[in-house]
Amino acid sequence: MNNFEFFNPVKVIFGKDQLGKLSAQIPANKRVLMIYGGGSILKNGVHAAIINSLKDYTVLEFNGIEPNPKFETAMKVVEMIKAKKIDFLLAVGGGSVIDATKFIAAAAMYSDGDPWDILAKRKRVKAALPFGAVLTLPATGSEMNNGAVITREATHEKLSFMSPLTFPLFSFLLPDAAATLPQRQVANGVVDAFMHVMEQYMTFPANAPLQDRFAESILQTLVEEGPKAYANPANYEAMSNLMWSATMALNGLIGCGVPQDWAVHMIGHELTAQFGIDHARTLAIIAPSHYAYNLESKKEKLAQFGQRVWGITEGTLEEKATAAIKQTVEFFHSLDVDTKLSDYTDAYKGTAQKISTRFTERGWAGLGEHQSLTPSDVEKIVEMSY
Amino acid sequence: MNNFEFFNPVKVIFGKDQLGKLSAQIPANKRVLMIYGGGSILKNGVHAAIINSLKDYTVLEFNGIEPNPKFETAMKVVEMIKAKKIDFLLAVGGGSVIDATKFIAAAAMYSDGDPWDILAKRKRVKAALPFGAVLTLPATGSEMNNGAVITREATHEKLSFMSPLTFPLFSFLLPDAAATLPQRQVANGVVDAFMHVMEQYMTFPANAPLQDRFAESILQTLVEEGPKAYANPANYEAMSNLMWSATMALNGLIGCGVPQDWAVHMIGHELTAQFGIDHARTLAIIAPSHYAYNLESKKEKLAQFGQRVWGITEGTLEEKATAAIKQTVEFFHSLDVDTKLSDYTDAYKGTAQKISTRFTERGWAGLGEHQSLTPSDVEKIVEMSY
Repeated sequence: MNNFEFFNPVKVIFGKDQLGKLSAQIPANKRVLMIYGGGSILKNGVHAAIINSLKDYTVLEFNGIEPNPKFETAMKVVEMIKAKKIDFLLAVGGGSVIDATKFIAAAAMYSDGDPWDILAKRKRVKAALPFGAVLTLPATGSEMNNGAVITREATHEKLSFMSPLTFPLFSFLLPDAAATLPQRQVANGVVDAFMHVMEQYMTFPANAPLQDRFAESILQTLVEEGPKAYANPANYEAMSNLMWSATMALNGLIGCGVPQDWAVHMIGHELTAQFGIDHARTLAIIAPSHYAYNLESKKEKLAQFGQRVWGITEGTLEEKATAAIKQTVEFFHSLDVDTKLSDYTDAYKGTAQKISTRFTERGWAGLGEHQSLTPSDVEKIVEMSY
Repeated sequence: MNNFEFFNPVKVIFGKDQLGKLSAQIPANKRVLMIYGGGSILKNGVHAAIINSLKDYTVLEFNGIEPNPKFETAMKVVEMIKAKKIDFLLAVGGGSVIDATKFIAAAAMYSDGDPWDILAKRKRVKAALPFGAVLTLPATGSEMNNGAVITREATHEKLSFMSPLTFPLFSFLLPDAAATLPQRQVANGVVDAFMHVMEQYMTFPANAPLQDRFAESILQTLVEEGPKAYANPANYEAMSNLMWSATMALNGLIGCGVPQDWAVHMIGHELTAQFGIDHARTLAIIAPSHYAYNLESKKEKLAQFGQRVWGITEGTLEEKATAAIKQTVEFFHSLDVDTKLSDYTDAYKGTAQKISTRFTERGWAGLGEHQSLTPSDVEKIVEMSY
């Protein structure tokens, strides 16, 4: 096991009929801005329950955070915060809304120039508005971490940041608010959480058996409960188990003291930027090729994953590893998530070279847990994904 | 899954050569009291590394916290804190030292009368001195929770408290500081951590598959790594895995949204009070009888535990459950931990009735996850443990 630090101060409040506790989490006299997305919270009762709990606060609203939240939209919210003297933010929705709120919290207090530099130049966040979250969609884990991904529409750049100051103070996790989700979004959530685990797990043995087993625990639970939640988002028990699994997949715990990969995410982001493919689906496209291409360096963990998650006990290490990739693909297919770029676009030719060129231009050599993947390797992986 | 809240703000810093980061965790100009136990930290380099890191602070020391830390000793430290105007505490050692420091932190700021009331009358802690911990012994999990158990020597009472104000600000987890531990203490640590998991897991199915698997992950890792650390406490990798498992066993995570038992601890504390038997060993004495006595209500989880932790696949539910208890006893024996009260004392007769009477006098009816165990049930369980 490697040395590590772990810190996660987010207070989680999980379950049914919990929003009555919301006002107790926010200091008195705060001017609260509720930030949300497309307005599903107006239909599922969440909006009303929040307004009811916060009846002693001044509450303003910003409705209109989009999927793959935009820098441009976030900056509109920052203007509103300054004009209306807001001093507490409440993100209500899924990972996009929470990610946007993290960036807004930091940008509203940024005094060293253009807040875009937090993303583009990795400028340190020295202050941020306090904020909480109400999660209605299991997927990204943003509700219990301090990271965010923001897209600049003007330049098609998708960049991330994290700061010790951008943990939510609290997150309400509401499985019943996910009951009315479109199935497609549930499938995306299962795949997103699954791949968050894989990025921290599918590397090489590092003598960290507890972290391995925690990762496998989440994967097994996603395999077991994900399809139930997909088949019926109103299945409260299945949605609860999916939601808690997605939160645990990216709150820092399973990554303690182990090597991490994240190449699938870095490549996948390019497919979203270029084709607008849902984030989770880009991961489902890239992951199988990435693991197959890097079979030699990942085969021990792939075989362990095959054995413990998929029950594959027969064959050589390589055979188990290959069978594990195949099972993963079949799992994604069972959620109606396609795993080839050509399933999503006819204009896929040239994509591999385009991404490889972008990575070269940005100096992004050395991807993966061994920092060994070159832009040329990335090109081959994307080609395998056509 | 039941509704739950989870909050754990402890910053963990884990591994080798980490104590150079200590000064960065403590605000400048603090007057620090280092609180420790028998003095092993003077031999293993931990004391010197702390003094070196804190060379810009005023550091005083209290050496003499005992196992099963005493209220009387804690109050001596409180006097010293007031006399020397201490405003930061640093617990260095195992769970006893950290538990004592939690109580001292609260007692030093207690202004509503006798601090004993925090334990005896469950008075709320309204303020506590800030403190951090340096863990040198894997066992209790106190390094990453807000609970403490304190014994009053005068009355042989062993009582607990917890408060949102008594989380350590930070905990250094140092597996190499445990390299020189007596084997007996390592065995106690493995059993203690194992039983912390069991108290939160060995109940009835609650449709919380991730929590179940996390619990089983810790148990499996303790079964695998515990004997290696016991055989050779200087095995850094094994001790690391044991230490992280013990921390995760009682930081609130696996108890989220599931029923909990804790009857074994409540009965075990009486054996420590009466015979001075090591805490972990009292759990090893009581647990097998407790599970056998409550086989009917716990058989589903016992069989699941048998299958997933011990690989028991044959037999009826009852047979698997019984075999799982037997395997657990054999595991404790493999660590040279005896599991019958008569292994520890010849004066065991009458103990069951004495404990049952005590529970009756205290009004402790309704133990266990169903709040159904009566003092008479407790008597039978203790008798089975002779």
